[in-house]
Amino acid sequence: MNFATVIGFSAAILTTFSLLPQTIKTLQTKRTQDISLMAYLILTFGIFLWLVYGIIKNDLPIILANMISLILSISVLSLKIKYR
Amino acid sequence: MNFATVIGFSAAILTTFSLLPQTIKTLQTKRTQDISLMAYLILTFGIFLWLVYGIIKNDLPIILANMISLILSISVLSLKIKYR
Repeated sequence: MNFATVIGFSAAILTTFSLLPQTIKTLQTKRTQDISLMAYLILTFGIFLWLVYGIIKNDLPIILANMISLILSISVLSLKIKYR
Repeated sequence: MNFATVIGFSAAILTTFSLLPQTIKTLQTKRTQDISLMAYLILTFGIFLWLVYGIIKNDLPIILANMISLILSISVLSLKIKYR
């Protein structure tokens, strides 16, 4: 694996799992006042389109990364709607 | 432009600009209590690595999208650190 590939994989792993601490924090505190609903609506729809793109292109890394992101993004979005 | 490309571009635009409403909201309210610091630390470093990846690969769409994302992510992260 060359340097670019290592950087690319690291970037993908970090951005995919970046929503996990927010999901855990929001599950614990049940507070979402400072979180932007519009941000998570746009993000969730964007990640959904990335997943569709991965399925059309039959690209497994794009499909897997965005499935994880979509679950996390929908989690935060649901908590935002529930506890707003 | 075929269907997959339209979906891909739409996905890229949505996920790139998804941080804009959060940046605006946080600038206005100056409240960041419910936002996860760890989430934005991981996200910002992940986006930075995507930018490095784009530069290594000389891939202009990846460079541009992640430059915008990085500015927005650093904005929210700075506000989080300032107003925590």
